[in-house]
Amino acid sequence: MQIGLGFWASKVLLSAVEMGVFTELAGRPESLPELTGRLGLHPRSARDFLDALVALGLIERRGDEYRNLPPADFFLDRRKPSYVGGMLEMANHRLFGFWNNLTTALRTGEPQNEVKSGDPDVFSHLYADPERLRGFLKAMSGISKGANRIIASKFPWKNYKTAVDVGTAQGDLIVQIALANPHISGIGFDLAEVAPIFEEYVAEHGLSSRVSFRAGSFFDLPLPKADVVTMGHILHDWDLEQKKLLIRKAFDAIPPGGALIAYDSIIDDDRCENAFGLLMSLNMLIETSGGFDYTGAECQSWMKEAGFRETRIEHLVGPDSMVIAIK
Amino acid sequence: MQIGLGFWASKVLLSAVEMGVFTELAGRPESLPELTGRLGLHPRSARDFLDALVALGLIERRGDEYRNLPPADFFLDRRKPSYVGGMLEMANHRLFGFWNNLTTALRTGEPQNEVKSGDPDVFSHLYADPERLRGFLKAMSGISKGANRIIASKFPWKNYKTAVDVGTAQGDLIVQIALANPHISGIGFDLAEVAPIFEEYVAEHGLSSRVSFRAGSFFDLPLPKADVVTMGHILHDWDLEQKKLLIRKAFDAIPPGGALIAYDSIIDDDRCENAFGLLMSLNMLIETSGGFDYTGAECQSWMKEAGFRETRIEHLVGPDSMVIAIK
Repeated sequence: MQIGLGFWASKVLLSAVEMGVFTELAGRPESLPELTGRLGLHPRSARDFLDALVALGLIERRGDEYRNLPPADFFLDRRKPSYVGGMLEMANHRLFGFWNNLTTALRTGEPQNEVKSGDPDVFSHLYADPERLRGFLKAMSGISKGANRIIASKFPWKNYKTAVDVGTAQGDLIVQIALANPHISGIGFDLAEVAPIFEEYVAEHGLSSRVSFRAGSFFDLPLPKADVVTMGHILHDWDLEQKKLLIRKAFDAIPPGGALIAYDSIIDDDRCENAFGLLMSLNMLIETSGGFDYTGAECQSWMKEAGFRETRIEHLVGPDSMVIAIK
Repeated sequence: MQIGLGFWASKVLLSAVEMGVFTELAGRPESLPELTGRLGLHPRSARDFLDALVALGLIERRGDEYRNLPPADFFLDRRKPSYVGGMLEMANHRLFGFWNNLTTALRTGEPQNEVKSGDPDVFSHLYADPERLRGFLKAMSGISKGANRIIASKFPWKNYKTAVDVGTAQGDLIVQIALANPHISGIGFDLAEVAPIFEEYVAEHGLSSRVSFRAGSFFDLPLPKADVVTMGHILHDWDLEQKKLLIRKAFDAIPPGGALIAYDSIIDDDRCENAFGLLMSLNMLIETSGGFDYTGAECQSWMKEAGFRETRIEHLVGPDSMVIAIK
């Protein structure tokens, strides 16, 4: 019953992010009447809503005042750079409703998002409107930042000089790598629409001299040459042939000794533990026409097939692991 | 992120109940191709869907075969009397979609269910169609049975001879009380549409000689007289004045020394622990025009106000507690 009605707690948090509860409370603790007014809550719902957030461990109530608990304050205040709520905003606006049609997706194998109302694919929909694109790219940074920082510090960057991040979005991965490794210069590769958003993000981090943008489709063009190719939350968007094509393109872009780092919510080889990875794969069913998440063993076999001589898997954070392949 | 994307796991279980995964596997273990065919799954989705159920701890995969784990086999096989999936079926068909409008409910205080498309209230909608009513009443039995059995064994029934269950639905509470206490005779009180479903359920349990149905609205009629009045998951459906009216009517229906037993997902007095009770109260926001869940202290104060001389709270199971009031 807790799993089956788990969408209640989930939607309460999504609505709280939408209404800016944690951003509001990051300013200062507030009383029930004050919060009710500032958030535009109806008196009937305000107390249950806020107390549910208390019981879920996101905020606390001391005396008459509600205040953020530290994790919500750090990760869910929209004004902090550590904000990761973009993915939750997208879940709230798009995914929750689309997932209501999961049974149809399970029976047909067809996506259940904007594609049903005529968009050719999810990326065309997301990229068509600059504000929507910015929201999506920020959401991607939010769910990737933790993993990106670990890759920036854990991978032996001292052995390499250049990196290209494929499907770079806002560019957080190449930014984190360049911040932690001042000898690395890098390229973010993505569709042209992404350029201004990427360049703004790179400039904010003072990296415009070492990190640049290359525009293009990774299916239509060869990947830019570099010592290391990275792909964060990219491979799972595509079907098997497309996955293999991207891995071959990475192989062609790097020199002998170069590396491909691909990360996703890699599913355990027995496919019975990483529930998030399996659910993410069903999210790819909802969102794409052929995407799926995969096990470490599968990814390593595709890499071997492309010619890489060595592969290994390293856990990053939460459900994410990286698969590293050396040419 | 786990809470915010918690609707993924939730919807996977809801779709599994809808598609009869656990009912199918209760027969015998089945392989992936066999299950794919029998459930009507698309090959693209079948393996991720079933392995997600494995990773969520609902079923297991041994060798090539999927099989129910014992709790899913007991509670989610539609053919077993212990089936509690009715509530999950209702969550899947109705609530998941309605909850997508939680933010609107929070801003307006208005229900977000069939009422929006013209039904006067949720009960009119549910009671209007016999099949829908049967589904709803079975769902209510499913989420109440555990609590009902505890009430049947824990309350000092030896001190009483008759009981009336108000808003009885299928009648599971009065049935459990009568099964565990052969000296008790009881009445189930609910709207006339419920009669055939109630009577069938009572007959199945061989109790037709001791348990009978009384038709009527508990707002329009006095409650039938009895030593004990019970109300399971009833008070939370109604607004404060209606709650107090029902408690006063219970007071009027019992003799001095008689008892009222009301149970719900009673919220802890500090309103910071029973998340399920607070979320259930938001479900009443989605479903009703004035309903809400309440703390033990609130309920006891309404009972005292109605004239009851003694009240106490006893925990039942999961989020449910009962409030007992003695006249």
